[in-house]
Amino acid sequence: MKFRKLIMLPGPTNVPDRVMNAMLTPVMGHRTPDFASVIKNISEKSKQVFQTSGDVVLFTASGTGGVEAAITNIIKKGDKAIVTNYGEFGERAGHMVEGAGGILIKVDAAFGDAPRISQLEEAYEKNKNIKALVIVTNETSTGTSFKWLKQAGDLASKYGSFLILDAVSGLGGDNIPVDEIGADVVATASQKCLAAPAGLALVSLSEKARKYVVNNPPPLLYFNISRQLKYLETGQTPFTPALPIYHALDEALTMVLEEGIQKRIKRHEICADAFYSSFESIGLELFAKKDVRSNTVIAAKYPSNVDDKQFREDLDKQYRVVIAGGFGSYKGKIFRVGSMGEVNKYHVITTISAINQTLNAMTGKLTKKDPLEIAKSRLDNL
Amino acid sequence: MKFRKLIMLPGPTNVPDRVMNAMLTPVMGHRTPDFASVIKNISEKSKQVFQTSGDVVLFTASGTGGVEAAITNIIKKGDKAIVTNYGEFGERAGHMVEGAGGILIKVDAAFGDAPRISQLEEAYEKNKNIKALVIVTNETSTGTSFKWLKQAGDLASKYGSFLILDAVSGLGGDNIPVDEIGADVVATASQKCLAAPAGLALVSLSEKARKYVVNNPPPLLYFNISRQLKYLETGQTPFTPALPIYHALDEALTMVLEEGIQKRIKRHEICADAFYSSFESIGLELFAKKDVRSNTVIAAKYPSNVDDKQFREDLDKQYRVVIAGGFGSYKGKIFRVGSMGEVNKYHVITTISAINQTLNAMTGKLTKKDPLEIAKSRLDNL
Repeated sequence: MKFRKLIMLPGPTNVPDRVMNAMLTPVMGHRTPDFASVIKNISEKSKQVFQTSGDVVLFTASGTGGVEAAITNIIKKGDKAIVTNYGEFGERAGHMVEGAGGILIKVDAAFGDAPRISQLEEAYEKNKNIKALVIVTNETSTGTSFKWLKQAGDLASKYGSFLILDAVSGLGGDNIPVDEIGADVVATASQKCLAAPAGLALVSLSEKARKYVVNNPPPLLYFNISRQLKYLETGQTPFTPALPIYHALDEALTMVLEEGIQKRIKRHEICADAFYSSFESIGLELFAKKDVRSNTVIAAKYPSNVDDKQFREDLDKQYRVVIAGGFGSYKGKIFRVGSMGEVNKYHVITTISAINQTLNAMTGKLTKKDPLEIAKSRLDNL
Repeated sequence: MKFRKLIMLPGPTNVPDRVMNAMLTPVMGHRTPDFASVIKNISEKSKQVFQTSGDVVLFTASGTGGVEAAITNIIKKGDKAIVTNYGEFGERAGHMVEGAGGILIKVDAAFGDAPRISQLEEAYEKNKNIKALVIVTNETSTGTSFKWLKQAGDLASKYGSFLILDAVSGLGGDNIPVDEIGADVVATASQKCLAAPAGLALVSLSEKARKYVVNNPPPLLYFNISRQLKYLETGQTPFTPALPIYHALDEALTMVLEEGIQKRIKRHEICADAFYSSFESIGLELFAKKDVRSNTVIAAKYPSNVDDKQFREDLDKQYRVVIAGGFGSYKGKIFRVGSMGEVNKYHVITTISAINQTLNAMTGKLTKKDPLEIAKSRLDNL
């Protein structure tokens, strides 16, 4: 396919033309002053977006690569880590802790819910010498968020743990003020709320984390943060970076800062609210519990007679609207709409309209309420 | 800088416009039929370029990431590996073997030379139960190549080892017929001889390697080849891929096949020969021993009175020609020209001309011979 579709996935997301076009910046040497200034620009802008004074390093990798870097640079053999487990990405984080030789202490919540602070406190009380608390800030797989980051930061600080955040589908759309939270290592990716193409993972480091990783580098090369920090000083990366994605991310970060972080987060909140309200108005059951609903990934259950594959195919073929299905055991049972990055009135209205008409056609039932009216009323503030 | 320079680096290299433009393919979902067909195309073309019937998996990563995937999926704690060590990339491979818990048996050669088959035979005779033979086919850091790949394959087969090739700066420019050699795991990268932008590593697997990695997956997620193979079956990647680089690589592989592998390799040989001949004609001392000279990276020593930084800055500023300096202890002592990917008459002539004039200006000596005449005579066959 060569024509453009409306990408309402929980990543990759729609990328603005000026960001796409930045990829055509002529090839440059990655160890030249030309590229050092690109790295410097990205570094400075990233710090603002992460709301941190710490360094942000970049890996040519997916978000999962960034989270693996975060975890494997902190967790060593025998180290205990508490990990929030409420979806696919919590499971991955747990897998990484164990892969690094650590001892995994899972804090579970049912899919559609999120662990509560009291559960984390309990885990701390039951276990001693916790090296790290690992929190998935937003569960892309279920459309739920962990909403108590500041309290989690206080808890990690009280017990002397590192706080590691998988903020892949949150940062840039949710308010994640890294320094204020007291988060030590925070990973995100280019293709989610930052609205750049996929290919780069960004990882921030507190002063405490920086000291630790420099003195305790992991045995392998690629996800070695210490090596990254050393090269960052001279405006380089240890290994050849995905240059076009750097140029795109540089432009995307400029757009984030032009809009302003707080305004961007507000926009995400408003769009998510419009999705939730209009879905409810046409009788769709939302998957996430109300108080942990995600601002960036909207998950809803299918009416019993709607086939996932057919539904998403119709949306794609007839409306060029691309949304995601469920993960793992929720495959076929829920659909997920990514409401992140560039998401705005047009995206929300078009998506709701396409979903409503497709559901009507498939179920043969016309909803009494017009979800567009409801969505539009919620979008007034944009 | 926004203007185009002549990138004569040992990667990244110049990327043809049609390959750059492919990056502007509209964003698509990475778990859709649209993208599955991109993956299928790349997979089929990669096999032809690798000259293998085995699968080729892709990682969003640098070449070093690909080599780390190759090594860490084969080498387990206590496994012995023989590694050719004749430059920076051999050292990295050794580091990875040890990082994976393996026992490193280095086969050294002086920088500018390459290990010989007899040395590998000796290493096999002295050590038992060698799990893998790891060969850097082309040492980007010194401009030398290991020229006896078929014999190395026979040796690995005789002793029941896996043969792992770091072919990052070789494949697509050097003749590396993977199946004929009997190589089990071969890693290369998008931005070298394939002339695509940086961001993807390609790793091929023999049937023997495939069986092994599927039954013995590594503990971590990102560079897990078994997981890659499972997703490849359905035209997906385990994690969000750098979509724009996939589109570019797809186009770049089409160009490789349009030209034909053997013709492409011949072109690399002719261009390398033109560089070597003309450099010698103006009295530059070549860094590599004659019988191990690289076809893709040309290294020469600086005349004693030429400052590396100044020289390369002049080349860049006055001629927009970008070349590389030396690695590690050869910093300031040698320069390296990448002669790979799209390299053709124009690139060679322009680079030699710029180098000759810059050297003349800096040393105050005019060379008696015209290196362009010599280069042109060598380029007649293109």
